[in-house]
Amino acid sequence: MKPNRRRSGAGRAGRLDIVTSVIGVIGGGQLARMMIPPAIALGLEIRVLAESEGSSAALAATAVGDYRDVETVLAFARDVDVVTFDHEHVPHDVLAALVAAGIPVRPGPEALAIAQDKLVMRRRLAELGIPVPAWAEVRDAAELEAFLDAHGGVGVVKTPRGGYDGKGVRVVHTAAEAADWLAGGPLLVEELVDFRRELAQLLARRPSGEFATWPLAETVQVGGVCAEVIAPAPRADEQLTAARDLAAAIAEGLGVTGVLAVELFETVDGRLLVNELAMRPHNSGHWTIDGAVTSQFEQHLRAVLDLPLGDTSTRAEFSVMVNVLGGPLGAQLPDRYAAAFAAHPDVKFHAYGKDSRPGRKVGHVTACGPDADAVRARARAAAGFFDS
Amino acid sequence: MKPNRRRSGAGRAGRLDIVTSVIGVIGGGQLARMMIPPAIALGLEIRVLAESEGSSAALAATAVGDYRDVETVLAFARDVDVVTFDHEHVPHDVLAALVAAGIPVRPGPEALAIAQDKLVMRRRLAELGIPVPAWAEVRDAAELEAFLDAHGGVGVVKTPRGGYDGKGVRVVHTAAEAADWLAGGPLLVEELVDFRRELAQLLARRPSGEFATWPLAETVQVGGVCAEVIAPAPRADEQLTAARDLAAAIAEGLGVTGVLAVELFETVDGRLLVNELAMRPHNSGHWTIDGAVTSQFEQHLRAVLDLPLGDTSTRAEFSVMVNVLGGPLGAQLPDRYAAAFAAHPDVKFHAYGKDSRPGRKVGHVTACGPDADAVRARARAAAGFFDS
Repeated sequence: MKPNRRRSGAGRAGRLDIVTSVIGVIGGGQLARMMIPPAIALGLEIRVLAESEGSSAALAATAVGDYRDVETVLAFARDVDVVTFDHEHVPHDVLAALVAAGIPVRPGPEALAIAQDKLVMRRRLAELGIPVPAWAEVRDAAELEAFLDAHGGVGVVKTPRGGYDGKGVRVVHTAAEAADWLAGGPLLVEELVDFRRELAQLLARRPSGEFATWPLAETVQVGGVCAEVIAPAPRADEQLTAARDLAAAIAEGLGVTGVLAVELFETVDGRLLVNELAMRPHNSGHWTIDGAVTSQFEQHLRAVLDLPLGDTSTRAEFSVMVNVLGGPLGAQLPDRYAAAFAAHPDVKFHAYGKDSRPGRKVGHVTACGPDADAVRARARAAAGFFDS
Repeated sequence: MKPNRRRSGAGRAGRLDIVTSVIGVIGGGQLARMMIPPAIALGLEIRVLAESEGSSAALAATAVGDYRDVETVLAFARDVDVVTFDHEHVPHDVLAALVAAGIPVRPGPEALAIAQDKLVMRRRLAELGIPVPAWAEVRDAAELEAFLDAHGGVGVVKTPRGGYDGKGVRVVHTAAEAADWLAGGPLLVEELVDFRRELAQLLARRPSGEFATWPLAETVQVGGVCAEVIAPAPRADEQLTAARDLAAAIAEGLGVTGVLAVELFETVDGRLLVNELAMRPHNSGHWTIDGAVTSQFEQHLRAVLDLPLGDTSTRAEFSVMVNVLGGPLGAQLPDRYAAAFAAHPDVKFHAYGKDSRPGRKVGHVTACGPDADAVRARARAAAGFFDS
């Protein structure tokens, strides 16, 4: 059923004048899912290695298996021109095996190692002179207590690996509150930043070095999970250039290819501090599907294929994306479309093909328009149709 | 691999409060292909009955077979909630069998019968009082000569069935020039309209009767094939309302569901005459993917599912779509992306996953912006990268 668009000689060992066009994505979540429409539009073939049957990206899944298994991943990647990712959890030995087999991996293992381990990330950002919250690596209760004493008796403890959406992050006032995690190995501890708001700078970079940034966005987190994004960030004229320069320095310094999201704190005294990095399309950039000339998903495909990047201009003065978290109990988003569409003909609805479950990201909506407050109100109202 | 998102009781015989969500498309061409991205975005399942392996819509093909075969089509449609079309060539007995099996068919057989036969179409439009070119049904050379004599010695002869993209259409000055076709049965003959330009009015209509129109577009045909579309049609203020009213009268009069394209002549004396109808997404509406809040493909899905229609506002002052006809010799569109993307970062490129062949529609590009002439120049230049 699936056509193979590659001609003989057009593979990764092929002639330089023939553009690679089969993209392999490891992971079948909503990020892989949202890469499928631009691949269809551009006539690129996309193949997904999904964790399970019925994944969010099942339409493009050509294999189901464990991304931690070298043989599974090598078999999946054998006929693709480039491997990229729905998530950052592929182990280093698997990435190394892909590289050894001559398969382009974007972003590459060195860059991904930094995204995979928060201690490594803090060390590398410090080396690059990037402003970050005060931090330390702590191996025991005494070291953690010492950090807390030096930073107002409070700190944010993070497990170096595996955390996302607020998981693996804990605000503590005593070392005892992190005793269970300390038993598992060294932790990252950071000052609790007194911030005015959170921002996110999205960028895409090609192997050749060309990069493009979208306008700085403001993000609203609830319980560590992204709830709402407004782009461009209102009243951020001073921060626009600084954020873009920071993201560019990180992307170049770490050799990132594909989309990079830099999550930032804007402190009460107006500084920007880097909070987290993601080396893939990111929740803070979902607004670009409807609100920018080139979406982060199309741009990621262009970038990993080392094709010239697209225009990142906005299509509207403001775009607001609101996540649908949890979703309607015992139903899916489309079951509420009759009412939601009738009330909001100009809002764009996105469903990830997942069953509803408390707290789960099952979709998002995006509204666009000239007035930030009005757009936000419309997006929130539209997302509200999918509350449990 | 393909998840079935329907819960028990959610099928077409299910409860009224559960929205149908599995769409079956007969035909695997580029129109079916372009329905896939909005289906993914909205979390709707789309399944395609393709003519052959490796079709343009192969990614969503769940069956390959002959759309003229009742059993093939019934087997394909068994588990879908609504059947719709990539083309208008499905025979009436197949459509009747689907209806007899209780499967919603949109547009329905009565409406499709009008789109399938140009003589039937002319008769029905005449009954509805819709302005059309002077026409006649002719069964022999004498009848055709009589028509030509009465209309300046020239006429446009059309085979009632099977014509598209200029096929089945011939300008004649004598009956002898249509002798081969006359041997096959009655023909439609029309006056050769002295037109200023060609226009297209796109509309979508739900079974419940709600309809929405996009702004009137100007189309440029070359050799009977759509080459270029600009929307909104420049200098057409007087025609906007008239065209919308005509399309609405046709959609309601013929009971069309889904997208309807009304191709129009704007005569040298400023009248609008209906040239052709298409009851599906149409080449004249491809600009809506990038240039309108709701594309014709998303709208078609909403309409055939009887969901409230989306906003048809434009995203830019002008959008220009230019078809890629033929494509690069011995190559596919993506082989030229490096140069095309570098020159035109703000143009949207669409490739249909087809091999290049002279005259074949293999893709299109769309440019948007405030100045009609500048946008047209950019779109033409971008499409030019794919010339043979």
